[in-house]
Amino acid sequence: MTVRAAVAGASGYAGGELLRLLLAHPEAEIGALTGHSSAGQRLGALQPHLAPLAGREVLPTTADALAGHDVVFLALPHGQSAAVAEQLGEEMLVVDCGADFRLADAADWEAFYGSPHAGTWPYGLPELPGARAALAGTRRIAVPGCYPTAALLALFPAYAAGLAQPEAVVVAASGTSGAGRAARADLLGSEVMGSMRPYGVGGGHRHTPEMKQHLAAAAGHPVTVSFTPTLAPMPRGILATCSAAARPGVGAADVRAAYEKAYGDEPFVRLLPEGRWPATGAVYGSNCGQVQVALDPEAGRIVAISAVDNLTKGTAGGAVQSMNVALGLPESLGLSTIGVAP
Amino acid sequence: MTVRAAVAGASGYAGGELLRLLLAHPEAEIGALTGHSSAGQRLGALQPHLAPLAGREVLPTTADALAGHDVVFLALPHGQSAAVAEQLGEEMLVVDCGADFRLADAADWEAFYGSPHAGTWPYGLPELPGARAALAGTRRIAVPGCYPTAALLALFPAYAAGLAQPEAVVVAASGTSGAGRAARADLLGSEVMGSMRPYGVGGGHRHTPEMKQHLAAAAGHPVTVSFTPTLAPMPRGILATCSAAARPGVGAADVRAAYEKAYGDEPFVRLLPEGRWPATGAVYGSNCGQVQVALDPEAGRIVAISAVDNLTKGTAGGAVQSMNVALGLPESLGLSTIGVAP
Amino acid sequence: MTVRAAVAGASGYAGGELLRLLLAHPEAEIGALTGHSSAGQRLGALQPHLAPLAGREVLPTTADALAGHDVVFLALPHGQSAAVAEQLGEEMLVVDCGADFRLADAADWEAFYGSPHAGTWPYGLPELPGARAALAGTRRIAVPGCYPTAALLALFPAYAAGLAQPEAVVVAASGTSGAGRAARADLLGSEVMGSMRPYGVGGGHRHTPEMKQHLAAAAGHPVTVSFTPTLAPMPRGILATCSAAARPGVGAADVRAAYEKAYGDEPFVRLLPEGRWPATGAVYGSNCGQVQVALDPEAGRIVAISAVDNLTKGTAGGAVQSMNVALGLPESLGLSTIGVAP
Amino acid sequence: MTVRAAVAGASGYAGGELLRLLLAHPEAEIGALTGHSSAGQRLGALQPHLAPLAGREVLPTTADALAGHDVVFLALPHGQSAAVAEQLGEEMLVVDCGADFRLADAADWEAFYGSPHAGTWPYGLPELPGARAALAGTRRIAVPGCYPTAALLALFPAYAAGLAQPEAVVVAASGTSGAGRAARADLLGSEVMGSMRPYGVGGGHRHTPEMKQHLAAAAGHPVTVSFTPTLAPMPRGILATCSAAARPGVGAADVRAAYEKAYGDEPFVRLLPEGRWPATGAVYGSNCGQVQVALDPEAGRIVAISAVDNLTKGTAGGAVQSMNVALGLPESLGLSTIGVAP
Repeated sequence: MTVRAAVAGASGYAGGELLRLLLAHPEAEIGALTGHSSAGQRLGALQPHLAPLAGREVLPTTADALAGHDVVFLALPHGQSAAVAEQLGEEMLVVDCGADFRLADAADWEAFYGSPHAGTWPYGLPELPGARAALAGTRRIAVPGCYPTAALLALFPAYAAGLAQPEAVVVAASGTSGAGRAARADLLGSEVMGSMRPYGVGGGHRHTPEMKQHLAAAAGHPVTVSFTPTLAPMPRGILATCSAAARPGVGAADVRAAYEKAYGDEPFVRLLPEGRWPATGAVYGSNCGQVQVALDPEAGRIVAISAVDNLTKGTAGGAVQSMNVALGLPESLGLSTIGVAP
Repeated sequence: MTVRAAVAGASGYAGGELLRLLLAHPEAEIGALTGHSSAGQRLGALQPHLAPLAGREVLPTTADALAGHDVVFLALPHGQSAAVAEQLGEEMLVVDCGADFRLADAADWEAFYGSPHAGTWPYGLPELPGARAALAGTRRIAVPGCYPTAALLALFPAYAAGLAQPEAVVVAASGTSGAGRAARADLLGSEVMGSMRPYGVGGGHRHTPEMKQHLAAAAGHPVTVSFTPTLAPMPRGILATCSAAARPGVGAADVRAAYEKAYGDEPFVRLLPEGRWPATGAVYGSNCGQVQVALDPEAGRIVAISAVDNLTKGTAGGAVQSMNVALGLPESLGLSTIGVAP
Repeated sequence: MTVRAAVAGASGYAGGELLRLLLAHPEAEIGALTGHSSAGQRLGALQPHLAPLAGREVLPTTADALAGHDVVFLALPHGQSAAVAEQLGEEMLVVDCGADFRLADAADWEAFYGSPHAGTWPYGLPELPGARAALAGTRRIAVPGCYPTAALLALFPAYAAGLAQPEAVVVAASGTSGAGRAARADLLGSEVMGSMRPYGVGGGHRHTPEMKQHLAAAAGHPVTVSFTPTLAPMPRGILATCSAAARPGVGAADVRAAYEKAYGDEPFVRLLPEGRWPATGAVYGSNCGQVQVALDPEAGRIVAISAVDNLTKGTAGGAVQSMNVALGLPESLGLSTIGVAP
Repeated sequence: MTVRAAVAGASGYAGGELLRLLLAHPEAEIGALTGHSSAGQRLGALQPHLAPLAGREVLPTTADALAGHDVVFLALPHGQSAAVAEQLGEEMLVVDCGADFRLADAADWEAFYGSPHAGTWPYGLPELPGARAALAGTRRIAVPGCYPTAALLALFPAYAAGLAQPEAVVVAASGTSGAGRAARADLLGSEVMGSMRPYGVGGGHRHTPEMKQHLAAAAGHPVTVSFTPTLAPMPRGILATCSAAARPGVGAADVRAAYEKAYGDEPFVRLLPEGRWPATGAVYGSNCGQVQVALDPEAGRIVAISAVDNLTKGTAGGAVQSMNVALGLPESLGLSTIGVAP
């Protein structure tokens, strides 16, 4: 089965990562590459690491250019996917790496994004309870945000097992590629190297409602999330340090058991042996997430930490993994758990 | 008034930073520089950034070498200060950058450091309530750990004002110099660049009891701290993201007022204007800490974030600032609030 | 003697570094800060590391705003200084950190910058032969480019002593701040971290004629320069690796002697002891340049390497040092040879 | 055809990269992993990015452990390969990533390494003239040093075509993994981040004779090399900036033609389109080298620049590529030209 795939937004970081992974996917054939300001250029000038595609031309993002593919990946700025998606045939698989179809609550969408809510698509985090069933056979996938991917992998087992109080605290450090490729002075190398800084503090980050939605689904009751994203001086990676007060009577063995149950059979989440902790450097370029959890007896909190590559498992790898599920391909096809280190 | 200062541990990172600051201090005269494995070498080979001291020889760390100074700074591995300090005359000011005399609770010391407790000295964080009075005229100072400096600056105003519930969560990212200069494979540039990772998770970090001790003093009741330190790919800096549930009825104005009261007159802590957030890059090489705070209304938490240079305000700058207080010099003498950026 | 200084271009990297140094200068008083797109903003939002100036407002860059100062520093894009400078009174000291008045040859200027040549001002590299005499009492100073500062410090002693053949090779690695603060996608942190790349290869870089001009002056005959600049993943610093074939009969002792003669009494250039080599990390934030030289007997080449901080000795520090000379102040006043490390 | 491969030195950086590539090689089966101080540990604790091998145990490096494989890769400290290799059967393919068998001249070996010369094996840089013929069917391969790989790819076409004078200048910047994984204080992240520095200046680097040997072979006459290695603040990558005076009458078209001829059909060297320059970030984790060349008409020099990943094309990828040639497998099998970026 050959899957002909188009990528809209091929000149950005998510688009480049999709292409890197699709080049290694044995059933994928790369079709149209489209862009906005990059249209007309050769990909070699835009993504010089993708040597096999150097001569390919970027086309303008239009419904015509995207037609005739089995899968269309949308790697567009938030809020632009809906307009493109509605022009694409229902028989095509559309995988949206943007936020447009992630949230179930229209009021949340409007509060955080300021535009009308476009709808809700099956959520591309197969590790969540029930997610594979919702993805199987679907023709529309909403790829999770990179921070929610990291935070949910760290926390959902604790909530699914009923071990944690409903107030979670998430502090996550992201590499700069998470902010995209647009030229911004505050993302210049001179500004980010040697510095760490938070942003969107105090409940304002758009990824907060996405975390709450899926933790609540896992828990069966509402969960609040105090989320603080920080920018770290590295190109890739998210380290999410998450915690929540343990429910009375919960012990370390309960916590360990819940995570072993959640991840024992997962191909792309590795619960580390006790005493070892995740590092983003160990999942650089890999679709594998690392997770570790501990119970701090004195503070009474479950501390769960995950490391993912924000562009791979956090975006493009999760997208390809979900595509595999939707199309009935082996879920791991074309995806690697091996990082590039050091 | 000329202050003749010796530095024990002159070849390490804390020792080098002490010398950098003392070179700029108008009343300090740099006396003996001592070390262990570096004894006999010229400082120029060990600390090539300290050009004016390039020809100075490092002496072995002995009571004789340290005798005859007005101030002795100890920048030694944890647990080694007590033995040196007891050989130093009571009339000398001894400023210990190690942990030996920080903790008030002997059981805490023994649990975390595994040796007999040596005692408790006045704590070198002048911004804490009552700290200046304890430092004035003292001849013994325990310089805070770099993480506690950052966490306490972020959190103590909330506790001193009675705004926060007694369970605090601290997630802090530190530059690699915080781990010292000993050759360790896990601190090689190849390992740390491009990677973030936690360590000492789940209550085990030695800086936890130090935070609890001083938050409790500010609050007037016990406070638990869930502390997770992480290692960030940068040489210097700590970003501490701290939070605690707000007490019922606490509003954003209460929080802002508490921090303005705490820091309105402080020379070395800058409460940022609302809407701006700390960055470690803005305090690189500076003795200034940046603090910001917000109330997350949905999660019900006070989120307070601080940025300090772990070697300056977090160690050597705090040491010199405390020395100034102890000796009756102007507190800001020889210390700068200006960072080196970008 | 109080010197009232204005800085045009206060929101850029060179402007910020000028302010950092002027804040530490005992005779300087900081007057107007001007900018273009930043006009109307508070400096605290633009240069958060300059805490003492946080409340100062940036004014539009006009002759009126700059009038009434003793010194005006111009930190403007190349080609914009001339128009501003001609509006400033002849009694004011104007220190141009741009390229406008560096080149003696109008044809070179026009070939590399594409606009009419504005003139030639005394060159602000006091270490060059005859430079101090030209700077003393001047009211106009052209601050060298950062690459020429590094390359000339490495090479001019060999040419002044007649030791080197007239074909020099310069390969220099610069931190990203050398490219300025304008938002450019190729300078994003995501692009520069983890990567080194050359630019302007093959004779095209604007700093080449500046190097040739001053090496020729030192040598007394024309010198060609093959110059390749590269961008390194660090915020600051230039490491210039320079070489030239040795003239027949030149020995290692001749080379050493020439450099010792050139730098024996220089306050801001440190010829390292034999066997030790420069590092940009050792001059971070310092006005000191480190130089080392060796004769490779097998290749027959003199290899001279320098490290400078491109923003300090390479721009703003050189500007303040030259200002001191021009105004008859002690040359080292307010400038430090101490770097911030690690 | 399944190739059973052992890796001696599995806990180092070269060993880890060999395993990363062998895991992706469709005909390779990973056999024994051996080490010295790491023997007895699980690989998951040593190379956490190699998830599929996490449970494998590291054995002591002995002839017994390495026996019974089709290929043995030696990733040992320089000078230790010979003793191991002589215990391995002649029917096994031994691929030495160390220096022991690279040099043809015993005097060079003894001068630079201080031990008896062990011999000379076919050189694992298939792109060199005649290299593939020497590698085909061999049972012993000497993998080039990472710097020589970069410098030779940049320069040999100019020498093979008779375009360059016999004095070459090579200035190369390497990521820190080139220095290996041994705990050294000068390689700590705190020391290398934010700093560039040279080492082994003035003819003393061990890779110089290796460059000379192969440039001379390409040129048909002796070539001197002035080589300066520098350490750059990044984990991986080498950027080699190389130049040599052009022979009289050589024009830009001659130069371009020579490089197009050399690299037109090479799977793992990409001569970039004119006007674009190599970047190490574009070959991160890839076995592809990027090369560009220009003639500087004013300086009269051919400037050739290459970028390789020191661990991939510069070591482990070159080793696997050479193994493929030696065993008669398709040369590109299991190797990728795609980098991980940003």
